[in-house]
Amino acid sequence: MVAVRPAPSARRRVVVEALAPEVDGGAFPAKRVIGDRVLVSCDLVCDGHDAVAGTLLYRGPRDSTWRSLPLARIDGDRFGASFVASELGVWGVAVRACVDTYGTWRAGTQRKLDAGQDVELDLAGGALLLRAAAERCGPDRGAASALEDAAAALGMKDVPQAERFARATAAAIAGAASRYPDLADATTSDERRVVVDPPRARFSAWYEMFPRSAGPAGRHGTLRDCMARLPYVASMGFDVLYLPPIHPIGRSFRKGRNNAASSEGHDVGSPWAIGSPEGGHKAVHPELGTLDDLRALVREARAAGIEVAIDIAFQASPDHPYVKEHPEWFRHRSDGSIQSAENPPKKYEDVYPFDFECDAWEALWAELASIFLFWCEQGLRVFRVDNPHTKPLAFWQWCLAEVKTAYPDAIFLAEAFTRSTLMVALAKRGFTQSYTYFTWRHSKGELTTYMTELARSPIADFYRPNFWPNTPDILPEALQFGGRAMFVQRLVLAATLSSNFGVYGPPFELMETQARGGSEEYIDSEKYELRAWDLDRTDSLRDLIALVNGIRRAHPALQDNRITFHPTDGDAILAFSKRSEDGASVVLVAVNLDAHHTRAATIELDLDAMGVGPDEVFQVHDVLADVRTRWQGRRAYVEIDPGVLPAAIFVVHRRVRTEHDFDYFS
Amino acid sequence: MVAVRPAPSARRRVVVEALAPEVDGGAFPAKRVIGDRVLVSCDLVCDGHDAVAGTLLYRGPRDSTWRSLPLARIDGDRFGASFVASELGVWGVAVRACVDTYGTWRAGTQRKLDAGQDVELDLAGGALLLRAAAERCGPDRGAASALEDAAAALGMKDVPQAERFARATAAAIAGAASRYPDLADATTSDERRVVVDPPRARFSAWYEMFPRSAGPAGRHGTLRDCMARLPYVASMGFDVLYLPPIHPIGRSFRKGRNNAASSEGHDVGSPWAIGSPEGGHKAVHPELGTLDDLRALVREARAAGIEVAIDIAFQASPDHPYVKEHPEWFRHRSDGSIQSAENPPKKYEDVYPFDFECDAWEALWAELASIFLFWCEQGLRVFRVDNPHTKPLAFWQWCLAEVKTAYPDAIFLAEAFTRSTLMVALAKRGFTQSYTYFTWRHSKGELTTYMTELARSPIADFYRPNFWPNTPDILPEALQFGGRAMFVQRLVLAATLSSNFGVYGPPFELMETQARGGSEEYIDSEKYELRAWDLDRTDSLRDLIALVNGIRRAHPALQDNRITFHPTDGDAILAFSKRSEDGASVVLVAVNLDAHHTRAATIELDLDAMGVGPDEVFQVHDVLADVRTRWQGRRAYVEIDPGVLPAAIFVVHRRVRTEHDFDYFS
Repeated sequence: MVAVRPAPSARRRVVVEALAPEVDGGAFPAKRVIGDRVLVSCDLVCDGHDAVAGTLLYRGPRDSTWRSLPLARIDGDRFGASFVASELGVWGVAVRACVDTYGTWRAGTQRKLDAGQDVELDLAGGALLLRAAAERCGPDRGAASALEDAAAALGMKDVPQAERFARATAAAIAGAASRYPDLADATTSDERRVVVDPPRARFSAWYEMFPRSAGPAGRHGTLRDCMARLPYVASMGFDVLYLPPIHPIGRSFRKGRNNAASSEGHDVGSPWAIGSPEGGHKAVHPELGTLDDLRALVREARAAGIEVAIDIAFQASPDHPYVKEHPEWFRHRSDGSIQSAENPPKKYEDVYPFDFECDAWEALWAELASIFLFWCEQGLRVFRVDNPHTKPLAFWQWCLAEVKTAYPDAIFLAEAFTRSTLMVALAKRGFTQSYTYFTWRHSKGELTTYMTELARSPIADFYRPNFWPNTPDILPEALQFGGRAMFVQRLVLAATLSSNFGVYGPPFELMETQARGGSEEYIDSEKYELRAWDLDRTDSLRDLIALVNGIRRAHPALQDNRITFHPTDGDAILAFSKRSEDGASVVLVAVNLDAHHTRAATIELDLDAMGVGPDEVFQVHDVLADVRTRWQGRRAYVEIDPGVLPAAIFVVHRRVRTEHDFDYFS
Repeated sequence: MVAVRPAPSARRRVVVEALAPEVDGGAFPAKRVIGDRVLVSCDLVCDGHDAVAGTLLYRGPRDSTWRSLPLARIDGDRFGASFVASELGVWGVAVRACVDTYGTWRAGTQRKLDAGQDVELDLAGGALLLRAAAERCGPDRGAASALEDAAAALGMKDVPQAERFARATAAAIAGAASRYPDLADATTSDERRVVVDPPRARFSAWYEMFPRSAGPAGRHGTLRDCMARLPYVASMGFDVLYLPPIHPIGRSFRKGRNNAASSEGHDVGSPWAIGSPEGGHKAVHPELGTLDDLRALVREARAAGIEVAIDIAFQASPDHPYVKEHPEWFRHRSDGSIQSAENPPKKYEDVYPFDFECDAWEALWAELASIFLFWCEQGLRVFRVDNPHTKPLAFWQWCLAEVKTAYPDAIFLAEAFTRSTLMVALAKRGFTQSYTYFTWRHSKGELTTYMTELARSPIADFYRPNFWPNTPDILPEALQFGGRAMFVQRLVLAATLSSNFGVYGPPFELMETQARGGSEEYIDSEKYELRAWDLDRTDSLRDLIALVNGIRRAHPALQDNRITFHPTDGDAILAFSKRSEDGASVVLVAVNLDAHHTRAATIELDLDAMGVGPDEVFQVHDVLADVRTRWQGRRAYVEIDPGVLPAAIFVVHRRVRTEHDFDYFS
């Protein structure tokens, strides 16, 4: 009557549910950094009350076989195990689980013994289990004979039942039984991937600057000038130095100062109009120097703890060698001319986009991937990718994986300011870090909502935000009109809300506020001309930036995005805390979002999130102002004068009691 | 240098994300009922700013090809389309999407025209697009020639550009272009399944009763007696009459009254000890009647709007014919005896569990599935499944699908009171409805948290709760000591929180409160003996139950689980509202959870959720007490005396203005 045969997996009684980490059911990898303890957890659900046993299977990028660890119960049906991601690259994880027949037998028999019931038949059943386990021991003869002996002993009716049971459940026997489970009806989950990146993928401080302005006033700056600037950048505590495109700049339709439609002879043009007879994406702009200069800069920066990042913008000026050599890589209009970039009715005649869908797309894609590989060969590992959202998602998924296979330490920052769906889709497909809307999020509600969204699973498993208060394209209104307090506020917010942040300097530390009328664009932008900056100005934020970056380095809580927002009364004071995974580092940040007036609030502390007891006295050390005070209980009053400092970064110290009953704060 | 070829899907620029409904990435079907408008939605994410076009592909259980509907933009990148589930069974849905080249061209050219730019080249590009579309028209020569003519017209340089553009973007041309898109690089999502059940799957009122007690006092009740009881059950408004197992009852180790370990000759035994020489799971207990009687009961009940549900308990008494005929279906102890049910140290010697993992499992599983099919052949369609959580998940997934393939109108209620992970796993694998923890959820916090969890996606897409205030196994403490007000409170909560609910009667409507000392078990339970009930007692809740079921039927808001909880001050008053999908039916329920004292609260109404404007005057009609009043604004004061009625069920009426300016409440 019932004709269809049950599926072959029908006897697999344990099902694996809610496996984590997991992005879109395994379609995309989760991201971690090297040295992380990767916790893999899942529900192991089985009918009835039998014991279940699970194994974490995992393999590193170069492993040909699985390594394994027993899963331990976390709570209820939730199990987990963790391993240290000791190598860069793509790891695989899976979970295997089955009914633990030995554990089920042991627990049931124990309960019967406790109730004083006869267990002779149960002991006989146990002997069968142990003999079956012995047969699975293979070459491990020690385990096999221990199991066989225990099985035989279960049958010695002259020995009291409890004694026989105790022998069959001794640690050695239980261990051997659990090492050789019956896997015939085990369930194995699909494999999930975890990409392991270098630490800077999660914790980094970026400084963007135009090499063209690194020289003395009046002369085009060079990569050698950038080398001279390294101590300055290092002194502020940055660890990524990001340079806008360093390639030869086209002449056709070159933009003039302030983005004028036409340029004059001495105008330097936009670095994003890439390519000239001197070369394209694999060449260095002659005015900046040579490939040798770049390699030297990368080496010297690395010696100072700084990675150089270059900007990869996949577009060509009309003078790019590709245009002549590979016209098939561009879109042609019906009159045969090449289609320049446009966002109707706006036209960008100095730039040709690549046609990622052209008939020769495979050659084009391969060439573009080779650009990353070329710069990796020169020693670079960090790339800021310009406008990735205007190139196909499938291209990035393929291209970034290709580069990471050869250079697993490569880092890609996606400069996509677009719809959040697209920003998220790019991050899933391999970008290491992503620009965000932070630049335009200013109110307490906006910041809380946005950061909460970013810090939540599964987004947090693959989207690593990088917060920028300003960029060469964006001088937000708040910075135009908020004064010094606003600059400091935005610095502290970017650097403490997000473990990755960056600023565009020197305009940031020199608090440049002049925009082109009514816009968010810098006036006299370095994008189109050389600028000279007085780095030694006494009002520079340089020292404060150094202080903030130093605080980030000293406190692991700020090196990740586990965050808790604490309610405050009113809209002016934002309060949030972070706590390192091991709980040892706890930082509470309070920011007065009003740049002009002293504001006060009572913070309703989430003491649990801070690892502090309800009645515990603890010390908070505002490491920005270097002031210490003691707090107790859920309510903390703060009053912040933005004219002095618009924020407090409280490091939380708990009382430690020594053996001599002398107590101090950790 | 880059050797690996990009994947063939690399030119598919549109990706489909966050497809809904979707359970575990498509591993399990979502559930709907017949007549539902099924909304399928997703993010269509594409690089850049090109227009995208998507199609919903769907097919009914008997369709061999896809039907299709255009996806419409909901908001941002979110798109959706809906169809009416017009047939029972498993539907398939998928989404196909690609770049809308015509739409992109139209929008861009329009913006250029608006800006007064020359679009001659754009018009030429449009002509190419239209000609390509014409070539895809196949046999639709009308569309092909319309597209070709429009393409030709785009080239008529003596006609103004705007005029040519207008012709090429006329509705007929746009329609033809969108009907024949270029699907070469379209993305198609994996297929997702939607199970379409009968309406009772989502909206049902169950009445459980023991046929053995349906006769006159002193005589064993029969199925014929149950027929005589139908008008009583129908008068209370129930639409499912659920009978505990109706099969022959074993004699070996038969339990006595009050679950005594041994029975006397006249003891009737537990109906869950299934099987005797008279037959097993496909037989009717001779004391209850015959198969013919059952078929007659099913027919007569259906005529009264009631479906009969029987209890399927997959276990056997030692006297079950299976034990002799198929000893291989049971677990054997080492002495050759069959292992009876146990939960150490407890033993249930009157019951043998089936060994779902035995060597003959395929024959066993097929036989068990055939039991459902047998009863379906007798006309039954609703099954309450006993303890499904002690049988393998894989068995249910296979078995329920087998039965639903033959009888897509079958309904299965899972009686699993166990870990929530397992209850959820069973629901995913095909149970139509599920028992819940409602029976033990009493406080405002508990009820709010639990119902919110159940009503949330994706749980709500596959887990249909059925709320029971009592069962033959559970007389909760609240009902033992809360008095009449508590019975009414639990009735109203079960019947209005959840669209599916049930009671075990007559003990429910007669407010039976006697438990075996300190337990939640009924004393003198019908599970082990015949009982006589005085259904005409004047204090019976019968009329109130009829009123509540009538309210449920009259107001579609109560026929689904879209729910909003409204804050109230204090812990005594729980307030929630429901609103039908079309917004026409809105019901607000307020319950005094304190069964002993009058309590009052201010409800902070979520007017948005009720479809009422912030300053609107609206009428609330408490259909339980039949009292009408008018409210306005967010704050509503209620005072509820449990001695009168512990709850109010407010039907919300908005003011309607007629054309003669006469207004009334809808």
